[in-house]
Amino acid sequence: MSDKLGDMRRTHQCGELSAGDIGKSVVLMGWVQRRRDHGGVIFIDLRDRQGITQVVFNPEVNPALHDKAHGLRNEYVIGVRGHVDARPEGMINPNLTTGEIEVTAGELQIFNAAETPPFMIEDRIEVSENIRLKHRHIDLRRPSIQRNIITRHRASATVRNYLNGLGFLDLETPILTRSTPEGARDYLVPSRVNPGQFYALPQSPQLFKQLFMIAGFDRYYQIVRCFRDEDLRADRQPEFTQIDMEMSFVGEEDIMAVSEGMIRLLFKEILDRDLELPFQRLTYAEAVSRYGLDKPDIRFGLELTDLTDIVAGSGFKLFASAAAGGGVVKAINVKGGGDFTRKELDDLADFVTVYRAKGLAWIKVKPDGWQSPIAKFFTDAEKQALIERLDMAPGDLILFGADDARIVNDSLGNLRNHLGRRLGLIDDATYAFTWVTDFPMFEYDETEKRYQALHHPFTAPLEDDCDKLESDPLSVRSRAYDLVLNGFEIGGGSIRIHQIDLQQRIFKALGMASAEYEEKFGFLLSALASGAPPHGGIAFGFDRLVMLLCGEQSIRDVIAFPKTQRAACLLTGAPSEPAKAQLDELAIKVRKIQMEG
Amino acid sequence: MSDKLGDMRRTHQCGELSAGDIGKSVVLMGWVQRRRDHGGVIFIDLRDRQGITQVVFNPEVNPALHDKAHGLRNEYVIGVRGHVDARPEGMINPNLTTGEIEVTAGELQIFNAAETPPFMIEDRIEVSENIRLKHRHIDLRRPSIQRNIITRHRASATVRNYLNGLGFLDLETPILTRSTPEGARDYLVPSRVNPGQFYALPQSPQLFKQLFMIAGFDRYYQIVRCFRDEDLRADRQPEFTQIDMEMSFVGEEDIMAVSEGMIRLLFKEILDRDLELPFQRLTYAEAVSRYGLDKPDIRFGLELTDLTDIVAGSGFKLFASAAAGGGVVKAINVKGGGDFTRKELDDLADFVTVYRAKGLAWIKVKPDGWQSPIAKFFTDAEKQALIERLDMAPGDLILFGADDARIVNDSLGNLRNHLGRRLGLIDDATYAFTWVTDFPMFEYDETEKRYQALHHPFTAPLEDDCDKLESDPLSVRSRAYDLVLNGFEIGGGSIRIHQIDLQQRIFKALGMASAEYEEKFGFLLSALASGAPPHGGIAFGFDRLVMLLCGEQSIRDVIAFPKTQRAACLLTGAPSEPAKAQLDELAIKVRKIQMEG
Repeated sequence: MSDKLGDMRRTHQCGELSAGDIGKSVVLMGWVQRRRDHGGVIFIDLRDRQGITQVVFNPEVNPALHDKAHGLRNEYVIGVRGHVDARPEGMINPNLTTGEIEVTAGELQIFNAAETPPFMIEDRIEVSENIRLKHRHIDLRRPSIQRNIITRHRASATVRNYLNGLGFLDLETPILTRSTPEGARDYLVPSRVNPGQFYALPQSPQLFKQLFMIAGFDRYYQIVRCFRDEDLRADRQPEFTQIDMEMSFVGEEDIMAVSEGMIRLLFKEILDRDLELPFQRLTYAEAVSRYGLDKPDIRFGLELTDLTDIVAGSGFKLFASAAAGGGVVKAINVKGGGDFTRKELDDLADFVTVYRAKGLAWIKVKPDGWQSPIAKFFTDAEKQALIERLDMAPGDLILFGADDARIVNDSLGNLRNHLGRRLGLIDDATYAFTWVTDFPMFEYDETEKRYQALHHPFTAPLEDDCDKLESDPLSVRSRAYDLVLNGFEIGGGSIRIHQIDLQQRIFKALGMASAEYEEKFGFLLSALASGAPPHGGIAFGFDRLVMLLCGEQSIRDVIAFPKTQRAACLLTGAPSEPAKAQLDELAIKVRKIQMEG
Repeated sequence: MSDKLGDMRRTHQCGELSAGDIGKSVVLMGWVQRRRDHGGVIFIDLRDRQGITQVVFNPEVNPALHDKAHGLRNEYVIGVRGHVDARPEGMINPNLTTGEIEVTAGELQIFNAAETPPFMIEDRIEVSENIRLKHRHIDLRRPSIQRNIITRHRASATVRNYLNGLGFLDLETPILTRSTPEGARDYLVPSRVNPGQFYALPQSPQLFKQLFMIAGFDRYYQIVRCFRDEDLRADRQPEFTQIDMEMSFVGEEDIMAVSEGMIRLLFKEILDRDLELPFQRLTYAEAVSRYGLDKPDIRFGLELTDLTDIVAGSGFKLFASAAAGGGVVKAINVKGGGDFTRKELDDLADFVTVYRAKGLAWIKVKPDGWQSPIAKFFTDAEKQALIERLDMAPGDLILFGADDARIVNDSLGNLRNHLGRRLGLIDDATYAFTWVTDFPMFEYDETEKRYQALHHPFTAPLEDDCDKLESDPLSVRSRAYDLVLNGFEIGGGSIRIHQIDLQQRIFKALGMASAEYEEKFGFLLSALASGAPPHGGIAFGFDRLVMLLCGEQSIRDVIAFPKTQRAACLLTGAPSEPAKAQLDELAIKVRKIQMEG
């Protein structure tokens, strides 16, 4: 046979032989990780997915075979039939499961030669990510990446077993579908059979999973690919995977309980960590008030304190005018930050300008009073009130934000995370989960001069707030919930609207005329009128979840074939220019364009 | 809460209560399948995914609740708190698991009203498929379709458990990828970030799974969506799902054994059928010789018999010239077909013209000799030879084909299937599997005047035939194998090429210059040079497999949201016209075209 396997069939993986196997005849197959010549004897570290076994070619035992082994180089693919022996005293490697044994070769098949790899197949390498992605088939041989990809498999298998056990059905939804607004740009696919018409790749299976509930499937899940044509940031991919689920006849508690059970099982199976349930909960209002952000990292303090009432009447114009203009004044007390240098304080001020803050007022609390450019503006009473509310003590550094609430929260919230990392307040070994609930239903889009759904337009409002849908939409809270881990949003969902009249009111609140929503969502409205049960669901970002489980910094390290920030696959060269005949068949033309960058 | 669930939480599904639950207080939720008013009492058949429970509203027990229940109509969504009672004597329904009990309602929540459905929620309905697809969320409530979709879930869970248990890794591959030739048209996706460039949706993850093997993952599988922009026939969809797998360090036997175990488990789990292993095997040559087709239905006889040698010198010009021109003469003996009418024979002749046969010669074997327009052309010796080889007996009908081998095999092979169905020779309860192996590597494309790969260009040739790659490509056999069930190809795969030099020879045999294959497949060649193990795999058409497991005739009945033969989703209205701004962002234009049909 051309593959040279002949009658050679693997008996073991390279990671499984141990002292108990001594005396056995075995066949191993794998890659040459390393060849050493030692005292005339050739030692091969033979590698496969499971581990490494040392193979010995001894010229005194078999001179011809020893000669053949001389030709072996790193990454050659071989098969070895041999005998499991105990390693000599002093050669035992206690760090390796196979460290007590070696295989004395009796037969060698060289299945394939290998060119010298462009980088070493090991974890700590100094090579650009682009080189790694171009040679991804080699990069994927490195132990850490291989472990990540296998962990990803284990995580998906764990999720499936858990959800299958709870009566969830793994149901498939279309990839060639209709454009629905999820807030990002769609990838479009021209239809050849229907010229001028396009499919959209789904940003999520949202409406299909709702249709499954309406059709009576009761509990749905899918580990499913989704697509967003966004400008890529570090932690985004054009295609990503989510754990998507939906349940009928449930409220928030049911979905949170199923989710918490799933996350606990994942952390137990993958990391052998016991998470305490239930997870903490914060309303959106509380999260933003205390942490500035709706995805708070709750592993450390440095919480934000609102001081607007104290400083509203103060002599410091910036604070007084922020308060008078409907804004807020808030501060963080950085315990022990009193020795920050002027340079360091300037850097922090630069940091917050990214978040549109105009400056960063500060007070250093010294044993003999305040050191601060703004101290002079406050009365003794105001000073006393600030000291008490901020629990000031000598050595503290107080950092202020004063502006619109959104700018203050955003800038101080991000400053808080920055300081947390910088001051070493974050325990990397801690996994701190919190649910964030009661999000606003809408936000106002200044550019388009209309309200937009903060989650999506199928999210149910809180019953108590429904009467304000038309009169005061910004005050309406939704039945949406996010699950946040260490400052990352890892999942989000909501109870959905199941009544046609409420769904129509939401579309109207979003500025759609009935002709528009009938055209876009007529099929949903018709389904809601056909007997729709109360239902809700959640979706978890699987790439990010696996990234956190693997302790990685980038989702590209847990995706086998990721794309770059230019949305390109460096390995295969996608995207690429199609043949003109292909475009002709699709009845489309590429416009003359100025190529960018 | 707006969903009216309040503190009502389901305690049971509608299919699970039985006599053992009598006396319990329960909460059920579901759809009104039917309402009957009987002697002043209202009976509701309450339906969910699991079954039906009878709910009773008795005016004497609770007049207000009885009044409320009067408003219920079919497909209303309700919740009921009640008491499990034994049904009165004579009301017991032994066909229902819940047939011994009923639930006497104590509380009723109406979660949603429902319009009268466009068709009945039951199995035998007279309604066009287009109406069903337009209201698919309602169609999916019908018991047979719901069962199919749930069977699909069970089938995928069974496959995953089986493959996970064998050390296969469920690994994801990109959907936005590079066009590779699999013989069908690609769906293209314009890239906004890289104007003028396009991704292709994968026709299969073929090269990525080979890269996984080269990267050392050893055993890969994925239940994965694939895409082909073909003109749709009855049994095709633009997107379809396959069970895709690949293994390293294996030969054909290993892949067949894993596949057979998987199929056996599926049939046991889903149908409680015990399949006998191993499956029968036929070479391509033998399949075509005996059955005319490379996906033979082996549940019945009517095999083809080659008569070329006997009739080559006969006086019947059509046979003699077919033989002289390198063609063949073959026949089917239809036992008991001797009483076919002239009209029936004409219909059979029409049938084979679809397969380019020019006619259908025939002989009816009577007790007193042959009745046939062609009998007179044969000598007694030729007649005797035909009688013996075809095992002729009175009452038989012999049907002949004479032409190029391809036309004869194709027309008689399809005629054989047609007759098998028509004569009731096929036992629908039988599942007959056969492997077909040793396919030709190439076929000659008359239009493009070049060789094409019969499977794909990464399929390994048989070692014995490698020396004919350049000199006689059409005689080279491949290490490809298909699994055929009852005449359907349900899976196919091959041992792949793992040596760079052999891969280059194949590309050349396919007429590619080295610049062309380097441009298209440079990354594969580079991977083959980096230490590629012997490997092979297989892919199963999951939609068709589930269709056969469900006993359905169309894959659309096992896909939740299928597309029509015009590649449209009638429910959501995909594909649709995009906004001009979307196309502008993608730098493409729709050409003015004459809309067809």
